[in-house]
Amino acid sequence: MEPWRTAIVNKDETHIWLRGYDITQLMSRASFASVLFLLHKNRLPTDGEERLFNALLIASADHGSGAPSCATARLAASGNRESLSAAVAAGILAIGDVHGGAGALTMDVIRVISEDAKAGGGINAAAARYVERAKASGQRVPGFGHRVHTTDPRVAVLFAMAKDAGVAGTGIDAVVALDAALKAAKTEIPINIDGALAAILFDLGFPASAGKLIFIAGRVAGLTAEVAEEHEREKPMRIRIPIEYDGEPPREF
Amino acid sequence: MEPWRTAIVNKDETHIWLRGYDITQLMSRASFASVLFLLHKNRLPTDGEERLFNALLIASADHGSGAPSCATARLAASGNRESLSAAVAAGILAIGDVHGGAGALTMDVIRVISEDAKAGGGINAAAARYVERAKASGQRVPGFGHRVHTTDPRVAVLFAMAKDAGVAGTGIDAVVALDAALKAAKTEIPINIDGALAAILFDLGFPASAGKLIFIAGRVAGLTAEVAEEHEREKPMRIRIPIEYDGEPPREF
Amino acid sequence: MEPWRTAIVNKDETHIWLRGYDITQLMSRASFASVLFLLHKNRLPTDGEERLFNALLIASADHGSGAPSCATARLAASGNRESLSAAVAAGILAIGDVHGGAGALTMDVIRVISEDAKAGGGINAAAARYVERAKASGQRVPGFGHRVHTTDPRVAVLFAMAKDAGVAGTGIDAVVALDAALKAAKTEIPINIDGALAAILFDLGFPASAGKLIFIAGRVAGLTAEVAEEHEREKPMRIRIPIEYDGEPPREF
Amino acid sequence: MEPWRTAIVNKDETHIWLRGYDITQLMSRASFASVLFLLHKNRLPTDGEERLFNALLIASADHGSGAPSCATARLAASGNRESLSAAVAAGILAIGDVHGGAGALTMDVIRVISEDAKAGGGINAAAARYVERAKASGQRVPGFGHRVHTTDPRVAVLFAMAKDAGVAGTGIDAVVALDAALKAAKTEIPINIDGALAAILFDLGFPASAGKLIFIAGRVAGLTAEVAEEHEREKPMRIRIPIEYDGEPPREF
Repeated sequence: MEPWRTAIVNKDETHIWLRGYDITQLMSRASFASVLFLLHKNRLPTDGEERLFNALLIASADHGSGAPSCATARLAASGNRESLSAAVAAGILAIGDVHGGAGALTMDVIRVISEDAKAGGGINAAAARYVERAKASGQRVPGFGHRVHTTDPRVAVLFAMAKDAGVAGTGIDAVVALDAALKAAKTEIPINIDGALAAILFDLGFPASAGKLIFIAGRVAGLTAEVAEEHEREKPMRIRIPIEYDGEPPREF
Repeated sequence: MEPWRTAIVNKDETHIWLRGYDITQLMSRASFASVLFLLHKNRLPTDGEERLFNALLIASADHGSGAPSCATARLAASGNRESLSAAVAAGILAIGDVHGGAGALTMDVIRVISEDAKAGGGINAAAARYVERAKASGQRVPGFGHRVHTTDPRVAVLFAMAKDAGVAGTGIDAVVALDAALKAAKTEIPINIDGALAAILFDLGFPASAGKLIFIAGRVAGLTAEVAEEHEREKPMRIRIPIEYDGEPPREF
Repeated sequence: MEPWRTAIVNKDETHIWLRGYDITQLMSRASFASVLFLLHKNRLPTDGEERLFNALLIASADHGSGAPSCATARLAASGNRESLSAAVAAGILAIGDVHGGAGALTMDVIRVISEDAKAGGGINAAAARYVERAKASGQRVPGFGHRVHTTDPRVAVLFAMAKDAGVAGTGIDAVVALDAALKAAKTEIPINIDGALAAILFDLGFPASAGKLIFIAGRVAGLTAEVAEEHEREKPMRIRIPIEYDGEPPREF
Repeated sequence: MEPWRTAIVNKDETHIWLRGYDITQLMSRASFASVLFLLHKNRLPTDGEERLFNALLIASADHGSGAPSCATARLAASGNRESLSAAVAAGILAIGDVHGGAGALTMDVIRVISEDAKAGGGINAAAARYVERAKASGQRVPGFGHRVHTTDPRVAVLFAMAKDAGVAGTGIDAVVALDAALKAAKTEIPINIDGALAAILFDLGFPASAGKLIFIAGRVAGLTAEVAEEHEREKPMRIRIPIEYDGEPPREF
């Protein structure tokens, strides 16, 4: 069997290195968010990037027990009290294309728009063309729209922090241009957290997969707390879903 | 259906509060580790607690692709390229009583020892009694022993930071006392990361379940990076485990 | 690296054997339930055992979308449309000590009672002593009680089939004795499906872990169908859980 | 909260119906494979369909501990001994586009070919055109090729049983035509189990998603047995993957 190659951790009897840094030095002097950044990017963040990355993880940490991820984790805990890992993992499994997954799609859209912009007319024209095509084919623009918020309060904070950190670039430009193009097309749907995350991760040089992976790393903070609360406050099997059966009436075998 | 109660997140159209704090203020001024602490403890950490909690999460972040959690995540990614969530969740499912789960057990042991110490003779005598009982019944002392390290370099750093932060208390005292009692009983097995985590989480006032949940929150940093690396560098289905069949020979139906 | 030992599957370029049987012969002549039995027991079932094992799997297959396992699978599918595996796995993660897990506990109780019976007085006296101890310590008797059914219609059918198959033994005797002892103690809670499964799996010579594993193998039939229905009939993100927040009011950072 | 609609299970205090059939009648007279068919198709299978469906589930049941699904389940069990569900779920999470997922893709290809065949020239010409396009764009044909077998022994048995059952139709025709077209194009890669499953599930009228879901239902038989064997025979943490680190050398913070 081939050894598994890895560039992430090296260790011997007395040392552990993460991406070449001695873990005890990281423990003494770095933040957890910086180390997550390091593991993905192979370098430590600048101070501005670190603040921004912290903000982005906090923005993803929790959005309430009703979000599919947290609700799934609590439901799993309701039937399975013997494994905390199982409940947290179940919560992560609810994260996909629809919930927490629009970030990866939005990063693809940013890439399409930024390449189209190079072809001519700038980012605003490219965004307008994208919105036009999406409307014509009846497709939703990923990174926009929310079930609860008309304006998501996290978005403006993230974009301002990105500017302060000198990180804001094509990603934010493209999402802001999409927002303007949607408004011009009389479609008032706000930038959502997936869209904001995608813009910033793009500008930080992360690949599209990070749209999902970094959201997961942030959301696990909330999932662990929601599962802990479910165990502490609630009885097993407390959750009763109202079901309406509309299938076959009783029939003969 | 009864509404689900929660004390963690509240929101309306324009605000999101985590444990009563406006999420935009947390994003601007707090670290991700502080917010994880807040979600679990209902208060923000002091500066010393925050440094310590960061160190503890970094210590848990990754220990190489061969640890069961990371190997499981990579194996799942090897067969299933279409879902990043699935691979990360698979990695979490390898965390249990044996891997990453000794923290919860150790916190129970700390509780036993600290209560026994109150009965008389102090923490060292109580730890010696515990080790004696464990040896007599052939049981392992949780939080001690490691496959790779003879001395885990993370332990001393964590204990020193806990002292600096004014956090060190019964948890660390009990684990240090156990270490001395094991040495006195001629059993040279070092404190491992689970034991150190347990000591500190105990001193920070976390319940035993946090021994597993906080380890998971830290390890997800490594899992997301290991899965990203597997996708970027390796081909699907690359992993071939050597199997030795020792069951029934061919037989008639 | 040591090769992994396994007694389950052997294969070469042109043959696959399961527990020594040529898979093509099993495919031509055996039922799926028989092969599941074979993989766990290393022998094919008798005709009576096969009928009984089929019945037991059918009894576990589905109990509606509101059971924690199916509800968890549907919730995961609600947020994550891109991975069918993720939704099915999430459903399995809701199976534990509380939901679908009482079988393993009940098998342990059967073992305790059957050993106590050998000590004297027979199975009925042993069951009565067990119920007395459980009542005295305020513990529930596993395998008894249900949220919906006052009499679970599956139980009598399973026990009758076990008798017909010549399988009924200590397992069913112990559970029936527990039922009588509970009634004598004025506790009218019916044998549930976990209890019936445990009795029969005990009499078929399965270990306690099978109480959970065989339930999972059966329930996956329902989980796959529930997930397919969720994808076909329902929109993503359709599930909205009513939340009641009772935590900290807004507070200053 | 809106009630969840479902057509699968209905129950009251004394009855449980699956798709309109009394579960006690199904338990007494049907096979588990028939009930899985019923849950997905809303009707019981004919005798021929039942035999075929059993064969298809048996063919999926297990292919050895080295397949990603089983290896992932065993690795998870290696670190996490406290949750059987977690290990089985981890195994399912390794099933995706690459492992066990080609069935869904192949069903899409069958649909494309069968529609192209209607346009003119019959199924063989359509399959040849498909292979030509795939070769031109460097894409693999899903449902063909295997790591171990040059001829997968399960395929011929399944196709023969499908013919005997009167089920063989466009699905098998399309896959056989693809096989011939690949051979004509000098590409000797055999039909694999995913391809055979897809052909038969297509001819049984299942949607593409069943390519994955029915494979999962079958594979869970093997996963539960592999996890049981891991618990019974092996020590925790036994699995050590050889890692070769090729990343950053030690560097200064």
